[in-house]
Amino acid sequence: MADLEEYTKEVALRARDASRELATATGNQKIDWLRRSAALIRSRTAELQRANAQDIEKAPEYDLSPAAIDRLRLTDDRLEAIAAALEEIVMLPDPIGEIIDSSVRPNGLFVTRVRVPLGVVFFIYESRPNVTVDAAALCVKSGNAVILRGGKEAFHSNRALHALLSEALVDAGLPAHAVQLVETTDREAVGHFLKLNDYIDVTIPRGGKSLIERVAAEATMPVIKHFDGVCHVYVDGGADAKMAREITVNSKCQRTGVCNTAESLLVDAAIADSFLPEVAAALEEQGVELRCCERSRAILPNSKPATEEDFRTEYLDLILSIAVVDDIEAAIAHINEYGSHHTDAIVTNDLAASQRFTAAVDSAAVHVNVSTRFNDGGEYGLGAEIGISTDKFHARGPCGLRELTSYKYIVHGSGQIRG
Amino acid sequence: MADLEEYTKEVALRARDASRELATATGNQKIDWLRRSAALIRSRTAELQRANAQDIEKAPEYDLSPAAIDRLRLTDDRLEAIAAALEEIVMLPDPIGEIIDSSVRPNGLFVTRVRVPLGVVFFIYESRPNVTVDAAALCVKSGNAVILRGGKEAFHSNRALHALLSEALVDAGLPAHAVQLVETTDREAVGHFLKLNDYIDVTIPRGGKSLIERVAAEATMPVIKHFDGVCHVYVDGGADAKMAREITVNSKCQRTGVCNTAESLLVDAAIADSFLPEVAAALEEQGVELRCCERSRAILPNSKPATEEDFRTEYLDLILSIAVVDDIEAAIAHINEYGSHHTDAIVTNDLAASQRFTAAVDSAAVHVNVSTRFNDGGEYGLGAEIGISTDKFHARGPCGLRELTSYKYIVHGSGQIRG
Repeated sequence: MADLEEYTKEVALRARDASRELATATGNQKIDWLRRSAALIRSRTAELQRANAQDIEKAPEYDLSPAAIDRLRLTDDRLEAIAAALEEIVMLPDPIGEIIDSSVRPNGLFVTRVRVPLGVVFFIYESRPNVTVDAAALCVKSGNAVILRGGKEAFHSNRALHALLSEALVDAGLPAHAVQLVETTDREAVGHFLKLNDYIDVTIPRGGKSLIERVAAEATMPVIKHFDGVCHVYVDGGADAKMAREITVNSKCQRTGVCNTAESLLVDAAIADSFLPEVAAALEEQGVELRCCERSRAILPNSKPATEEDFRTEYLDLILSIAVVDDIEAAIAHINEYGSHHTDAIVTNDLAASQRFTAAVDSAAVHVNVSTRFNDGGEYGLGAEIGISTDKFHARGPCGLRELTSYKYIVHGSGQIRG
Repeated sequence: MADLEEYTKEVALRARDASRELATATGNQKIDWLRRSAALIRSRTAELQRANAQDIEKAPEYDLSPAAIDRLRLTDDRLEAIAAALEEIVMLPDPIGEIIDSSVRPNGLFVTRVRVPLGVVFFIYESRPNVTVDAAALCVKSGNAVILRGGKEAFHSNRALHALLSEALVDAGLPAHAVQLVETTDREAVGHFLKLNDYIDVTIPRGGKSLIERVAAEATMPVIKHFDGVCHVYVDGGADAKMAREITVNSKCQRTGVCNTAESLLVDAAIADSFLPEVAAALEEQGVELRCCERSRAILPNSKPATEEDFRTEYLDLILSIAVVDDIEAAIAHINEYGSHHTDAIVTNDLAASQRFTAAVDSAAVHVNVSTRFNDGGEYGLGAEIGISTDKFHARGPCGLRELTSYKYIVHGSGQIRG
């Protein structure tokens, strides 16, 4: 790339221009593009798999694990799933143009807040080719132009998928630059994009914590992000023990490598003696290593001791930190202090406890008698998600189409002037 | 101030702690505080006016104009207006706890989005003591702690008002640090606060463009802001000439020093020959200097020529730039290119033109047959505003109580685990 700075500016400028056209595109044009894209992915599998083979071949150079290489592979089934996901996005209601709220003022002004696209999204993501298509679909459906920066390990697959998305854009009469793929794997390109707040309205980074921290520190535009998920299950004195055990095991074990997995279990001192041995047996049956505070270790003497650091750690593994707390207030204080404001659950049948917990825990998602694993755009009914936010500004929790929008005030009158 | 960095961190930490208490305060506590504050302002006018006299005395040192000194003065009437404004905020519905939307998922999960405070607001503002009270009231009513950094010219007045607000906080059983005033006029303090994104959730700067640019560049947390208001009136070929003339004059002249005042008039070529002389006469009667493009100057030969820069300028004065445009598309392109995405109005009786203009103009507020001067929290029915945003992220247009809030997902179940 001759001049990276100039290249990134050109890409961003083209995205901005495309976004202005996209903002007034009809729902039908966007649906047409989604359907054409799905059809192209289905009819051009050989071409996509040839490109994918190049990534698979290079994968050992990137020290990818066999499991990671497998995830990279675009099998027939996976390509079909990618196409089918596009058709699901077809079915989601178009968010643009919705009147969010309105009022008629005493002087006759009709004041409306109308949903509009954010503009240009810069999306940085892990080496998963399906995300290339998903993210493009969510951005365009919500009227945004997108600049895609995928992981280098999926570069050839992404380029082949992007070529089809671009072809479909032109066929659907939409701006060709509505979806752009960054044509270099140079890490410096990201830094240049992050300076272009005149053209890019939001950056969404996904991947490791260090990447997200770098993006958050360097970005000159808003960022939708979460660093990590130190999620808790708090088992209250008023809990049903069987439900508490099942939710704890599910929150920890159903899938360990994801952000909404529980990393820490808090148990009300009132029931710790009876509940801890029972839940420990169920967890150990799943192969979970338990790291316990002093009080819980007194009940589970064979467990490892937890350090202060354990309670701030996202293990993403079959490890769980455990603490006994005096009461619900101590649980709330612990979660607000040690957690990452992602997803925290209480198990209780005590109404007042559930009310206090949901009001006082300062997290994107607070669950009552529900596994933490349900914090997800699909499970919450958003249809699909482009990421998840633990910030409070603009979007919190799973981010779907609505979170990729803004609004404008449109005010109609009949010649009103201000006196 | 011995150590500015330490001081700012202490203030921010106290605000964070206060915000956690405030988040679950009842509406009645907040109302009690607002009423007590109003009562104290009414009963302690002598004390407030003594402090105010110190500012008035020092004002010449700050090179304040006689008009600015007058605006600083806390007369009896103005103190009464400040107290009355608090009582108006009492009447606004409490935004916290509202279920914004909800759904029951097929598996029985009850998913709700519930409105919560943002947390801690850092508010930087001009030398207007009434704003100290207004801003504190809006922040606390929406459950946020606030750090107030007012203009140095109003320092003593702000300190006296803040003392009463603090007294009322304690009396109402709310955390005393819910409202803090920065106890130094050192400009470096602002820089330190802008680094504290671990404690401060949003910064709202008001004042001159250079201050806002500095804050936007330095802030590590989200910022609600607008740099300037280069607002347009576009008079379409389908406009009623009398309405167009009145809206143009009102948008330019009703108050010149504010951000929602029109700075530029665009006229459809189809009606320029007849409309321009008529509107020019009305504007010149109000003392407005006209700066015209070549085409409008051909119709108004006595006007001054406009430079390219004129069309990007917020005059905040009795000056108006004028351009003749080929059609509505040229008007839209001009506004999106030269404007500041603040407030732009079309005057027309053509339905299709109004639809195209409102869809394609990318501004916080788009008015149809309404003076630009109506873009205001009060006029839009928000009750009161803490600022105005031309960004698209989180809040756009006037920002009232709702824009000082976020949400969390609260999900109720009956033991659901993920399969």
